Amino acid sequence: MENDDVVYIGNKPVMNYVLAVVTQFNNGAEQVIIKSRGRAISRAVDVAEVVRNRFLNDLEVKDIVISTEKIASERGETNVSSMEISLGKKSK
Amino acid sequence: MENDDVVYIGNKPVMNYVLAVVTQFNNGAEQVIIKSRGRAISRAVDVAEVVRNRFLNDLEVKDIVISTEKIASERGETNVSSMEISLGKKSK
Repeated sequence: MENDDVVYIGNKPVMNYVLAVVTQFNNGAEQVIIKSRGRAISRAVDVAEVVRNRFLNDLEVKDIVISTEKIASERGETNVSSMEISLGKKSK
Repeated sequence: MENDDVVYIGNKPVMNYVLAVVTQFNNGAEQVIIKSRGRAISRAVDVAEVVRNRFLNDLEVKDIVISTEKIASERGETNVSSMEISLGKKSK
């Protein structure tokens, strides 16, 4: 009953994450959440768009949430933007 | 009755766009749409978060839409991800 699979976006090529998301859906996930922070946010949008347009056309963007996270760094606390894109099967 | 003001995010510092968005609201806009493409998408999220958290606390994210645009470049057509963040006054 894992219906909230998560893929974290880092600095690897877009296709790595696309494969991760497609694999989760092929393994039966109903919904996959693509999480990203800072610069990786642009890449997260690329991942969602490539999955939807090129691989799994029966998916839609269920929800997109943006927020601010506090990250502890050497120079104290920094604010970093973060985003979660939820992809799921289109409701029939 | 301009209630769909638009701010396009480019390569300038985040604060430039924050100021543009805040100005639109101060001029009476009900809703401002923050548009971005490619790498600027991360910056657009920063702009929305800074406006909401530091300047205008009565705003909320009304909608976020992601899509793919075809851009003509020297090497033919390229796909570029794009995002629109709609900020508006919180409904009372």
